Amino acid sequence: MKRISPVVNIGTVQIGGGLPPVLQSMTSTDTRDVKKTVAEIQALHTAGAEIVRLAIPDEAAAEAAVKICQQVDPVPVVGDFHFGGAEILKAVPKCAEALAKFRINPGNSTDKHFTDFLKRAKKLKKPVRIGVNAGSVSPEILADSRSLVQAVLRTVELSVLTANSLNFPADQLVLSAKLSSVPETIAVYRSLAQNFPYALHLGLTEAGSGLSGEIASTTAMGTLLAEGIGETFRISLTPKPGKSRTREVDVGKQILQALELRNFAPRIISCPGCGRTQSDQFQRLADEISGRVEKAFPRWQKKFPGVETLKIAVMGCVVNGPGEARSADIGLSLPGGGEASAIVFVRGKKVADLTGENLTGEFWEILETFVAEHFSK
Amino acid sequence: MKRISPVVNIGTVQIGGGLPPVLQSMTSTDTRDVKKTVAEIQALHTAGAEIVRLAIPDEAAAEAAVKICQQVDPVPVVGDFHFGGAEILKAVPKCAEALAKFRINPGNSTDKHFTDFLKRAKKLKKPVRIGVNAGSVSPEILADSRSLVQAVLRTVELSVLTANSLNFPADQLVLSAKLSSVPETIAVYRSLAQNFPYALHLGLTEAGSGLSGEIASTTAMGTLLAEGIGETFRISLTPKPGKSRTREVDVGKQILQALELRNFAPRIISCPGCGRTQSDQFQRLADEISGRVEKAFPRWQKKFPGVETLKIAVMGCVVNGPGEARSADIGLSLPGGGEASAIVFVRGKKVADLTGENLTGEFWEILETFVAEHFSK
Repeated sequence: MKRISPVVNIGTVQIGGGLPPVLQSMTSTDTRDVKKTVAEIQALHTAGAEIVRLAIPDEAAAEAAVKICQQVDPVPVVGDFHFGGAEILKAVPKCAEALAKFRINPGNSTDKHFTDFLKRAKKLKKPVRIGVNAGSVSPEILADSRSLVQAVLRTVELSVLTANSLNFPADQLVLSAKLSSVPETIAVYRSLAQNFPYALHLGLTEAGSGLSGEIASTTAMGTLLAEGIGETFRISLTPKPGKSRTREVDVGKQILQALELRNFAPRIISCPGCGRTQSDQFQRLADEISGRVEKAFPRWQKKFPGVETLKIAVMGCVVNGPGEARSADIGLSLPGGGEASAIVFVRGKKVADLTGENLTGEFWEILETFVAEHFSK
Repeated sequence: MKRISPVVNIGTVQIGGGLPPVLQSMTSTDTRDVKKTVAEIQALHTAGAEIVRLAIPDEAAAEAAVKICQQVDPVPVVGDFHFGGAEILKAVPKCAEALAKFRINPGNSTDKHFTDFLKRAKKLKKPVRIGVNAGSVSPEILADSRSLVQAVLRTVELSVLTANSLNFPADQLVLSAKLSSVPETIAVYRSLAQNFPYALHLGLTEAGSGLSGEIASTTAMGTLLAEGIGETFRISLTPKPGKSRTREVDVGKQILQALELRNFAPRIISCPGCGRTQSDQFQRLADEISGRVEKAFPRWQKKFPGVETLKIAVMGCVVNGPGEARSADIGLSLPGGGEASAIVFVRGKKVADLTGENLTGEFWEILETFVAEHFSK
């Protein structure tokens, strides 16, 4: 069951209140480069990031952020502050106004600076994420704690006590506490969800890159989201040189879709193939259909609302094939053993026996007809 | 906390009893092709699959399996049976002997066939996985159930009752119940873990291919393993044509490593980079170090036992950089802003300030020295 937190308005986007989790990302460009940063925010938003954060290390970045927010409107932009954030917001009031949310790291702030920052946000009625990170917990708290997990939780607790002492509104508060260890991240967020009645932003920090970064992030975020924890989250991947930042958004969308919390694209259910299938033939068929779906999807999306919920099964043999093909919206099952024949089901009813060389083409026609009939405006 | 199940011996491999989860895979070749199947089993085993399953649809496959088991010894080979499995085992007794475990799908078996199969396994003292699959639940049970989850659980229950009526030994029994929906898979295994005191084999069935298959599998398996559920598991991916079956093993290893249940290779902790880092410079550095580690690892493994537990941090700026670099075995943190300088920590102690063009080379020397000193035989 999904935990219910207060609703927090982040510009045009709402999080919390039992709404499905919202996906965020963060720019990798130099914030002072307005053109590049705007382009990256737009690419991340198009890919599916509903909120985008950018670093504001100094006043020059804050000045640039004003222009960036204007140019990417209505995408909600979050300013990431450490160290002298309160002074930057004071020096560039237009930036404070333009941003949809502020993030402040209490580990990199003096008590006075942290308090000043929250006061300013409260006055401006801007939501704040108190973003604790294991890499920047204060040495004093660390020395006083039995474990990194305890130190991180203690940092959150002290920060929330400060916010409460200022009567900081619950519907403007988001908490996060990121660690680089997956089990520690899971432990921390389970505790936060149980003990703090605020919206939570999830993240595994410093996950790295490539397969290991993607699988570690998915293991941490997937587990928490599956347990109903998390109003919003970000996947933090180090991009390979020359590769797009949007990969982290793709991974995030797949987690939400896997958990059936959100739908972004049709799902292809296909068996892995084994000694019962002619694996080459089956793999080619599954690949061909998934390639065609990917290509057709942008066209479908424009004409057929809801088509992102479509489930297609492509199965290699009689063991589970007919069963899965029957459960999907539209399913095809081969007999196994390399025969060029297949049965096709539409919503549980067998509609065709296909044979011969044009099997894929004939299946595709049935699929296109199904989409047009079931998802028309 | 890890659930404790009976220990089950699968050839040379033990599962259960609170041991860390064991990774399995399955061949995609025609089992009758001994040469190809042996090669694939060896590739899967080298990649990290500790138990490998193959389909035995008929007597010819059973004859081939005898030779395959001999040639891949000591890798435990599991025979996958549906429909006439009991007859096949009876007709080719050497196959029954050679296999380390049998898998039987009760949904594709008559009651008599299922009972005969379990009797034969009991007599031969072979472990059996009762492998229920949502795609092959009997239509009668499905019609009697409120949901697919309930039908799958009912199928497991009836199968276990049959096994118990035959006094089938608990330390020869493994249960699995795979569905293609991630939330349903999680729900089913949570219930199995609570209600059945046997070793569980986890799997998300028909996960598909590419990023969506990998993320869906990781979300399901990661959540369950994080909750202490699962004595063994397989990631079922449809390979892209021409791509290796071993990808599913790589994904499985990454999940185990992310959850800190097993270690297979050094972990690189690196931040995603943001407007504070010079992203190109930082991405190139992180990529260079991770490439060097990957290349050095096979050499290290031979000389330095335990090197797979090594944690290396490569961080882009002062926000979390020094903290993470300090927590890792060996860590490097850039200042951010594109400066060619870095601080290096070894087990929490600052050991060097590096500057200039050969920064990566100098860091690498410190790393090689650390590995040689800390992981020597």
